[in-house]
Amino acid sequence: MSRVAYVNGRYVPQRVAAVNIEDRGYQFGDGVYEVVHVHGGCLIDADLHLARLERSLGEIEIPVPLGPRALRQVFAEMMRRNRVSEGLIYMQVTRGVARREHAFPKPLPKPAVVVTIRRLPPFPRDVEAWTAAAITRPDERWQRCDIKSVNLLANVLAKEAAHAAGAAEAIFVDAAGMVTEGASSSVWMVDREGCLCTRKLDHAVLPGCTRAALIGLMEEAGIAWRESGFAKAELAAAREIFITSASSFVKPVVRLDGRSVGEGRVGPVTRRLFALFAHHVQGAVRNAPAAAS
Amino acid sequence: MSRVAYVNGRYVPQRVAAVNIEDRGYQFGDGVYEVVHVHGGCLIDADLHLARLERSLGEIEIPVPLGPRALRQVFAEMMRRNRVSEGLIYMQVTRGVARREHAFPKPLPKPAVVVTIRRLPPFPRDVEAWTAAAITRPDERWQRCDIKSVNLLANVLAKEAAHAAGAAEAIFVDAAGMVTEGASSSVWMVDREGCLCTRKLDHAVLPGCTRAALIGLMEEAGIAWRESGFAKAELAAAREIFITSASSFVKPVVRLDGRSVGEGRVGPVTRRLFALFAHHVQGAVRNAPAAAS
Repeated sequence: MSRVAYVNGRYVPQRVAAVNIEDRGYQFGDGVYEVVHVHGGCLIDADLHLARLERSLGEIEIPVPLGPRALRQVFAEMMRRNRVSEGLIYMQVTRGVARREHAFPKPLPKPAVVVTIRRLPPFPRDVEAWTAAAITRPDERWQRCDIKSVNLLANVLAKEAAHAAGAAEAIFVDAAGMVTEGASSSVWMVDREGCLCTRKLDHAVLPGCTRAALIGLMEEAGIAWRESGFAKAELAAAREIFITSASSFVKPVVRLDGRSVGEGRVGPVTRRLFALFAHHVQGAVRNAPAAAS
Repeated sequence: MSRVAYVNGRYVPQRVAAVNIEDRGYQFGDGVYEVVHVHGGCLIDADLHLARLERSLGEIEIPVPLGPRALRQVFAEMMRRNRVSEGLIYMQVTRGVARREHAFPKPLPKPAVVVTIRRLPPFPRDVEAWTAAAITRPDERWQRCDIKSVNLLANVLAKEAAHAAGAAEAIFVDAAGMVTEGASSSVWMVDREGCLCTRKLDHAVLPGCTRAALIGLMEEAGIAWRESGFAKAELAAAREIFITSASSFVKPVVRLDGRSVGEGRVGPVTRRLFALFAHHVQGAVRNAPAAAS
């Protein structure tokens, strides 16, 4: 079956789904995006992703083209047309098509909206088969990484460096030697004293939706954690490291820069949080109304 | 007459010229670009632009899709089909179309090549009518601004701030208070002692082609200049400021952050360099072969 994409109000075969060459997303990276996990035909943490999309749009002054309800209808239609119940939804909103000038076009064009979906294996059952290696890498990105923009060239280069080193993720380290985040994930560690931590949110990192969902689950479960930054050296000495994102969920990092993290196995804290998040994902399906949520 | 664009080997009406939604330029800003000035049917400083394009491609490991000779043929054809002899050529090369993953696709897709052209008024005759206001703005861009990538969101936001303040250009100032460059130009000044200077090239700034051409002209003419950085405070106290780019040539900045630069008029050094560059541009036409160069 050929895939179907949503482009500016129409459902079209993905191989011919196109945007004008003067779409500002193409010429300036003038747009933002979100990725939402689909499990059992349900959207996971969709409220968080849709709220973050509106925040990103607001930060760069792109009018909201479709509200959460309309976007959810598009997502449901995309799942139906593509027959995807396990996978990822990708959505991108750009400032639209206009003659090329850096400043915002006047009058404002209609923002462009693109949605794609892809099938993926279901949520992993076994955390032991869900481990990854990571490398560290200087954070050369811009200073507004809290905006989920499509200006991702630094992330592309970092991911490529990770893959070339046999790793799945690149973890960025800023000029002061502090860990910011992964090229497509939030970074957590259990330090040498057993303290679970992740850095605070600021302009240097994306406010992770999976991070936020996990924090909610941990607080419900009474699991202690601390919002505090850590240096690359502390990360290298951690007992456990894991990353979170809409597609990696809670993913143990068992090798960092070619060396074992802790004992080189999935640690007890990561194992527990993986199970907690798995329960959350299953719960979304259990609690869904008869139609897709 | 409707405009014609070049897209991946074909000349197509620009209003329907499109790229696939999974072009990595659209989803990751994974591409680079150049802008070349056309005067009297001739390309200005094309060798410099084509060399910089190849350098940018090399830095992010996109294979060169068309060499300088083939690109010049496309440019000539674009001028002919669009009947443009005064204007700007825009060209963009991205890593091509592939299923969305940050790291480089394997196997590598064919890079995507897009060229557009637009008509502009001829080279300005009168420098007095070619002045601009500028604002300063914190440089929040990534750390590889030497690569002319389409990751331009910070530039877009800065230009919009400039326009909102009634200015044409935003001049970036780094965390140490030093001027880097304009949102779409190189920045020069004549300091309080009368010394003409612009900062050295490094990863924080684009190696300007117009900057390089002007330096060549100044050296031929025996005009003294210095490659040295300057702080925002020094810029604010400058006798003269001007910017250079393929579309602004040598453009006097007579107001900075709402205050007059020097006496608020075009200064003698800027006037001389404008004339020098105008002579260079006219010379390109005088020295062109019978067909477009």
